[in-house]
Amino acid sequence: MFPEYDVIVVGAGHSGCEAAVAAANLGSKVMLATMNMNTIAQMSCNPAMGGVAKGQIVREIDALGGYSGIVTDHTMVQFRMLNRSKGPAMWSPRAQSDRMLFAAKWRELLEQHPNIDFWQEMVTGIVVKDGRATGVHTSLGLEIPAKAVILTNGTFLNGIIHIGEKQFGGGRAGERASKGITEQLVELGFEAGRMKTGTPPRLDGRSIDWSQLEEQPGDEDPGKFSYTDTPTLKKQRPCHIAYTSQEVHDTLKEGFDRSPMFNGRIQGLGPRYCPSIEDKIDRFADRDRHQLFVEPEGWNTVEIYVNGFSSSLPEDVQYKALRKIRGFENAKMFRPGYAIEYDFFQPTQLKLTLETKLVDRLYFAGQINGTTGYEEAGCQGLIAGINAHLSIREEAPFVLRRSDGYIGVLIDDLVNKGTKEPYRMFTSRAEYRILLRQDNADLRLTPLAQELGIQGAEERMQRVLAKQEAGEAISKFARKLSVEPGEVNRYLDSLGSQPLSQKVKLHSLLLRPHVDIAGLRTVLPALDEFLGNYEPEFIETAETDMKYEGYIERERERADKMNRLENVRLFDNLDYEQLTSLSKEAREKLSQIRPETVGQASRISGVSPADISVLLVHMGR
Amino acid sequence: MFPEYDVIVVGAGHSGCEAAVAAANLGSKVMLATMNMNTIAQMSCNPAMGGVAKGQIVREIDALGGYSGIVTDHTMVQFRMLNRSKGPAMWSPRAQSDRMLFAAKWRELLEQHPNIDFWQEMVTGIVVKDGRATGVHTSLGLEIPAKAVILTNGTFLNGIIHIGEKQFGGGRAGERASKGITEQLVELGFEAGRMKTGTPPRLDGRSIDWSQLEEQPGDEDPGKFSYTDTPTLKKQRPCHIAYTSQEVHDTLKEGFDRSPMFNGRIQGLGPRYCPSIEDKIDRFADRDRHQLFVEPEGWNTVEIYVNGFSSSLPEDVQYKALRKIRGFENAKMFRPGYAIEYDFFQPTQLKLTLETKLVDRLYFAGQINGTTGYEEAGCQGLIAGINAHLSIREEAPFVLRRSDGYIGVLIDDLVNKGTKEPYRMFTSRAEYRILLRQDNADLRLTPLAQELGIQGAEERMQRVLAKQEAGEAISKFARKLSVEPGEVNRYLDSLGSQPLSQKVKLHSLLLRPHVDIAGLRTVLPALDEFLGNYEPEFIETAETDMKYEGYIERERERADKMNRLENVRLFDNLDYEQLTSLSKEAREKLSQIRPETVGQASRISGVSPADISVLLVHMGR
Repeated sequence: MFPEYDVIVVGAGHSGCEAAVAAANLGSKVMLATMNMNTIAQMSCNPAMGGVAKGQIVREIDALGGYSGIVTDHTMVQFRMLNRSKGPAMWSPRAQSDRMLFAAKWRELLEQHPNIDFWQEMVTGIVVKDGRATGVHTSLGLEIPAKAVILTNGTFLNGIIHIGEKQFGGGRAGERASKGITEQLVELGFEAGRMKTGTPPRLDGRSIDWSQLEEQPGDEDPGKFSYTDTPTLKKQRPCHIAYTSQEVHDTLKEGFDRSPMFNGRIQGLGPRYCPSIEDKIDRFADRDRHQLFVEPEGWNTVEIYVNGFSSSLPEDVQYKALRKIRGFENAKMFRPGYAIEYDFFQPTQLKLTLETKLVDRLYFAGQINGTTGYEEAGCQGLIAGINAHLSIREEAPFVLRRSDGYIGVLIDDLVNKGTKEPYRMFTSRAEYRILLRQDNADLRLTPLAQELGIQGAEERMQRVLAKQEAGEAISKFARKLSVEPGEVNRYLDSLGSQPLSQKVKLHSLLLRPHVDIAGLRTVLPALDEFLGNYEPEFIETAETDMKYEGYIERERERADKMNRLENVRLFDNLDYEQLTSLSKEAREKLSQIRPETVGQASRISGVSPADISVLLVHMGR
Repeated sequence: MFPEYDVIVVGAGHSGCEAAVAAANLGSKVMLATMNMNTIAQMSCNPAMGGVAKGQIVREIDALGGYSGIVTDHTMVQFRMLNRSKGPAMWSPRAQSDRMLFAAKWRELLEQHPNIDFWQEMVTGIVVKDGRATGVHTSLGLEIPAKAVILTNGTFLNGIIHIGEKQFGGGRAGERASKGITEQLVELGFEAGRMKTGTPPRLDGRSIDWSQLEEQPGDEDPGKFSYTDTPTLKKQRPCHIAYTSQEVHDTLKEGFDRSPMFNGRIQGLGPRYCPSIEDKIDRFADRDRHQLFVEPEGWNTVEIYVNGFSSSLPEDVQYKALRKIRGFENAKMFRPGYAIEYDFFQPTQLKLTLETKLVDRLYFAGQINGTTGYEEAGCQGLIAGINAHLSIREEAPFVLRRSDGYIGVLIDDLVNKGTKEPYRMFTSRAEYRILLRQDNADLRLTPLAQELGIQGAEERMQRVLAKQEAGEAISKFARKLSVEPGEVNRYLDSLGSQPLSQKVKLHSLLLRPHVDIAGLRTVLPALDEFLGNYEPEFIETAETDMKYEGYIERERERADKMNRLENVRLFDNLDYEQLTSLSKEAREKLSQIRPETVGQASRISGVSPADISVLLVHMGR
């Protein structure tokens, strides 16, 4: 009934959708298998994309030809650039999406792709022949053959939903769990674990007293995610901010004895940085209030998402506590929050390509690897999709280094360190933050996409080249243009910055704190005229590159040094037990993780610089 | 956690949505409970509304203030008036809808209604106190209190999906079944049964060779369903026609030994007039081909619905047979067709208000009553919603008679005769077809909606009054205007109609076959000028009323005669066993059905005209 596909993607969430598109845009014939075609690209949690570090990931996905940014741009109801008051390494785009439009747009783009087929049914197992994945089994007993398989099962593997003392099997509210895959993988030798995540109650916006909440509008000049010519917002919907109180906390505590979190019923570990409200008041007992972020679910719906109030307390406790929040006195719920436990697999069982070490051409991406977040899931799908394609063409794998992008950081962290709790990205996880900015993901990654031959990368490169040229031209101009004291001293004075006593180059002036191009343009007509030739985004990147030149150079040097280690590959069959100069702990850890490079080995906890020297000597360096 | 609602509606399909709106538009506080708010108003079967007799029902729903017509008008991709070549009693509007937009629009309208609240969870039982429904129980163990409960569970009650030899619990592909309600109702004394329906495979439109199919475009001048000012279509998507062949049939037959229809696995009876393809080739063995209607699922999706190819044969057989159809040689499926068995309750257990006889203020509407079709479901929801509201206000029930509308026919049939197989509407079920036209549902029913005080009926009445006035004015004009032979004889000749030898009134000319107002306008400037004052729809109804005057009068007389019996109510506590003048069979049937009126009694099979005379005498007539 089915032809042999190049790649089967199991699951059509953020990870599965990106995986399908990535492989398809490289020319692979892809089968996207999902339990329900009406729930493709559902936003299971909040209706938002991006945020701190996550926004950078969306832009990286976009720069590599993924669709998350494009879909978000087409369906957002609000855009904000977070952290604008901080340094540019911290700037992070975030958008609220219309939940229904988001899913519809994804499906539309997938359907338009000639290389993607669809099958609606539950996948119950992987076909494995001679240690290699060659297809999947379905609940109807069908076999779909393929050269590679990517699993993106999200929270569906043996999903159990908890609300207070009640439990239901399910992969998402109102949807069935998926059975069979975990059991088979364990039989194949994989180590499975249990994780937990949660979601807050959904409220009826008509029952909220909005006048009691702080409004948080979108940016006046809203940006977007994609580097392509997607639309920008003409109108926006605001979010709102509410607060819990001691009274709310006391009410919640009344339900603690019936909480599956506290009575031991939930075994899986939850996301530390996205805790449930009961977790927050338990762990931060001294705080008398927590902020809640009240998000609209779309343009036309009254459904409201109460970000920050994730809970698996009994529904009556959730309800009672919600109604003690200012503005929520008459709030009606559409459904209570809940926790969900699901199976995951320690990502230390993966290579940096996201291929499993145990089964060739079997890839894992998304929550199945113990991550949390749409963005984290999406980028893993992208990398798995690219590598599945490359593997079946027997081409060199595609691995992003930590200095290439947050995606590189994420996968390196997962594969080397594993994770005990749902892993989410933070800027603090990246050691090369000033290199990995949201404004330059295209400069960093689109050339790699072009090298890979990802469909659309050629056209994207036109803009990247123009941006590079603009950067060089602006930098050259700034190094050449002399500025007279009389031209800028009033401006400098207004900033509290030392006046000039003699003329200097524009470039050196830019290195001063607070001085920026926007300000200088107002007093330097030559600059203003020159910049008139360039897009604002190009100018922004050029300015940052100049202003942070020193930091950037230092990070680049550190990265190069590390990348030299990254280029020293370790033999696949290296027997660490034989390398007696290694510490015992290093021998153990290296045998277990089997890093692909010395660089990767250096990031394994318990592997010391002395051990690294031993490895370098052994590898002939 | 919940206030006491006036009405709880369980299920948010076509029936549940109309029920919620009907009660809410009368002023009741409504709780709409659904297992999944993302699947409100899903079109489970084909993406189309209306059709023969069904289109009339949609217009009747609209005339009574329901939203099915409005939603369809906003979301259709094609409109056709079927049977235009037949008499106006047969004209039936039909629309293809965009499946996703249809559901989204319904949800939007429901959310905008201040009297409708929502709860997403499985309802597992009814709260019954002293023989009266007073709320529902949910899977979380919650009780939602209400004064009345309407069950619209569709195919979800203990739903089992069959594909070949495989069975799955489920209410719809990829969705869970609902548990608990049947068992409780049986315990309360209800008689439950099992029914079956089916759905065809969904195809990937990109894999179809459209050039091999017949195109069926929409009407050049597309109409619409609602009598309100909804939009009309500016562009349309075509449907297509394909045909099975002997080769296709032979291929399907290869799977008959694995068919759950033929090997006894499916117990429930399926819809006779919407049979599966295996049923068709089994029952009509002499036919060497069957027509398939290939419907688009929306504006932007490639998903295709193959109307006429419903099947529960094994998926490999479906696939193999599909590929033998001309144009489908390379067809790819998104999912196979399947059959679904579900619980229903003999509708003879209901009053004409759709309230159950066993439990007060408990109403059943839609497939739970053994019907099939969105339109049949929607109108039952509407009637149940209205009556639930009226009952809790202790107002007189609202019952449509067979001469009022197809809705009256439907409910009268169900309640008096019950049904052994999924009941769908046909024009042949109505004895007053020329009264019950699609063009005059507003004239028939909107005055009743106004009397009830349904929100919006006032405004609708403005147009109804204008239409009535237009009808009277046009009729008067036609009876007055003399037409000279010289004015019309060329026109009459072109129709093959006898020329006039002397002047006649326009009205009598209209009674001739083939002569119509459109034609007469071209030759009678006075008529054309006069009609310029009126909407085309008003003229259409006026013309039909004049042209079919004789038939209409005769049907009206027959209806009046029957309605006199309809007005003779039978005592609630009438003991038929005591009426020894009744035949034995009549005593039995009347005791079982307990008709509300003598008219209703007259339509029960086994109750003779002699029995009716006995009843009339007994009731003092």
